Amino acid sequence: MSEVNRVWRLRKRPVGDITDDVLSFAEESIPEPHEGEFLFRLNYLSLDPTNRVWMSDMDQYMPPVDLDAPMRGVVCGTVVTSTHPDYPQGALVSGLGVWADYQVGTPRSVFPMGDTGSIPVVEAFSTFAVVGPTAYFGLLDIGQPKAGETVVVSAAAGAVGSIVGQIAKIKGCRVVGLAGTAAKCTWITDDLGFDAAINYRTEDVPTALAAACPDGIDVYFDNVGGEILDACLKLMNFKGRIPTCGLIAQYNATAPVPGPYNYGMILMQRLRVEGFIVLDFAARYPEAIAALGQWMAEGKIKVRTEIVDGLEHALQTVKKLYTGENTGKLMIRVQDV
Amino acid sequence: MSEVNRVWRLRKRPVGDITDDVLSFAEESIPEPHEGEFLFRLNYLSLDPTNRVWMSDMDQYMPPVDLDAPMRGVVCGTVVTSTHPDYPQGALVSGLGVWADYQVGTPRSVFPMGDTGSIPVVEAFSTFAVVGPTAYFGLLDIGQPKAGETVVVSAAAGAVGSIVGQIAKIKGCRVVGLAGTAAKCTWITDDLGFDAAINYRTEDVPTALAAACPDGIDVYFDNVGGEILDACLKLMNFKGRIPTCGLIAQYNATAPVPGPYNYGMILMQRLRVEGFIVLDFAARYPEAIAALGQWMAEGKIKVRTEIVDGLEHALQTVKKLYTGENTGKLMIRVQDV
Repeated sequence: MSEVNRVWRLRKRPVGDITDDVLSFAEESIPEPHEGEFLFRLNYLSLDPTNRVWMSDMDQYMPPVDLDAPMRGVVCGTVVTSTHPDYPQGALVSGLGVWADYQVGTPRSVFPMGDTGSIPVVEAFSTFAVVGPTAYFGLLDIGQPKAGETVVVSAAAGAVGSIVGQIAKIKGCRVVGLAGTAAKCTWITDDLGFDAAINYRTEDVPTALAAACPDGIDVYFDNVGGEILDACLKLMNFKGRIPTCGLIAQYNATAPVPGPYNYGMILMQRLRVEGFIVLDFAARYPEAIAALGQWMAEGKIKVRTEIVDGLEHALQTVKKLYTGENTGKLMIRVQDV
Repeated sequence: MSEVNRVWRLRKRPVGDITDDVLSFAEESIPEPHEGEFLFRLNYLSLDPTNRVWMSDMDQYMPPVDLDAPMRGVVCGTVVTSTHPDYPQGALVSGLGVWADYQVGTPRSVFPMGDTGSIPVVEAFSTFAVVGPTAYFGLLDIGQPKAGETVVVSAAAGAVGSIVGQIAKIKGCRVVGLAGTAAKCTWITDDLGFDAAINYRTEDVPTALAAACPDGIDVYFDNVGGEILDACLKLMNFKGRIPTCGLIAQYNATAPVPGPYNYGMILMQRLRVEGFIVLDFAARYPEAIAALGQWMAEGKIKVRTEIVDGLEHALQTVKKLYTGENTGKLMIRVQDV
């Protein structure tokens, strides 16, 4: 066990884009677990759009990270020392942790990963820890798509969006994705089987959406908010559903962001807009993991992971989420399992 | 039967507030019913916020009124001549009609009122035709309030809002209403039993709401949109519900209206925002009418009707809805039953 523990700490709340002075990165001593806790070493750090929310003090779904505290993240690690029988030395764990080589886990925040079968650990962590269940419950429980309906998803080449679209295809829907580069659009249509893709940076979104959705939109899986939400609202069908998964278009805003101008469509078309966080479905994770694992084994769901080596690159890497530079699940690899 | 048929017709679509040149009022011939239709004479004309929507060409839940067509309205009348056995001469009917003394009804648009029992016809029409079922289904089906929860309603001294609040009280909720005059606030608290009232014209709404809702808001019954919606969003509890019944704050807008700035609360608090129109519940009207009738008979729901005599005053009177001048259900009386 190395004596070095590198820790990212939140030093100031970002205003607008994440800047280099928001986090510090320094060597610290290795923390000591208390009774019933365990120490684990980081293997993979998931980078997610919600990281920007946790850094801020905007209204949010759990307390923001305290100033000067270690940065929060979804992590995968290996138990080093333990006083808890369910978390023996060498056990693989994942859950809510911090951006640090070594950290203390508790049974409330971190869970044994179990056997990932034929799926590599990095892929299992990438898909099952957050984004797969997010896509699964958000689309199926909140969105309730029916075969033949049209499902639109934004950030469609992102970790959640790419899985949402593939589940919607499995359920027999017409699926239209929005992404920000030609390569992403090609990936979701040619490799993932989306029916259509719209490059929101180069195309006129309202026009392109109307063309891609000749029968209107029944489910809009919203990862971004903003102008794309507005364009989708305009095309929503009677009793359409909008699972609200993320609003990345506004996380970096420096001034109050207006809601959608077409908010009135909620009334006129009797839409249901419903926010959710995957943690709300924690008790049903096994259901999602079983379904996703089977679809992956059958080749019906493909996942892409964009891995950057080195905890020291976490700050530069997380910025990619807000500029659209990444494709698929973005993560930091500290040490392979 | 008078030979005079006075008809209001839509002559231009309003821009901003309703102006006098939007509708014309002139004498015309009495229309002829076809086979299976019937002619009825207007007794009462309901004036509702949605009238402004129908006059416009904004996205809406049914086709707007055509230019030069008679203005659409919810009406109560008496059958004059009929070829339909379910609508004999002298039968009382209500439903979707037009702003005219005489008009042709069909079984798809107008329904027999039946016996209103101990409730006067004007009150039965006022409460059961639109606003009572709107309050009933919107609050109970969409809002799903539980005893002990806090329910906030805007336009609380209006026809729908005043009933929403009283149903919420029957269901054991804490009820807070927003209204625009001291007299309205006194009416909803002292006469209708609301727990608190906020005068949105004289009080700072976010501050007053926070004080009136110390446990947050579980259900916000939205009649208005705009700044009040924003203030409520900020206080919504986990898994709160927002039945979207009306957005009167923006019907008269002349420029695109931004959605709520606190739209992100939908995600953070996992809210459900759901639009509805009472017509969606048409098949269940008898359930609402039975419940409302019983509550009215028991004195648990009080309704107030603001009646203006004379079809010729319809245009001046409907404007009151958008300036907050009326209390309770606003209607025109042409001729008592």
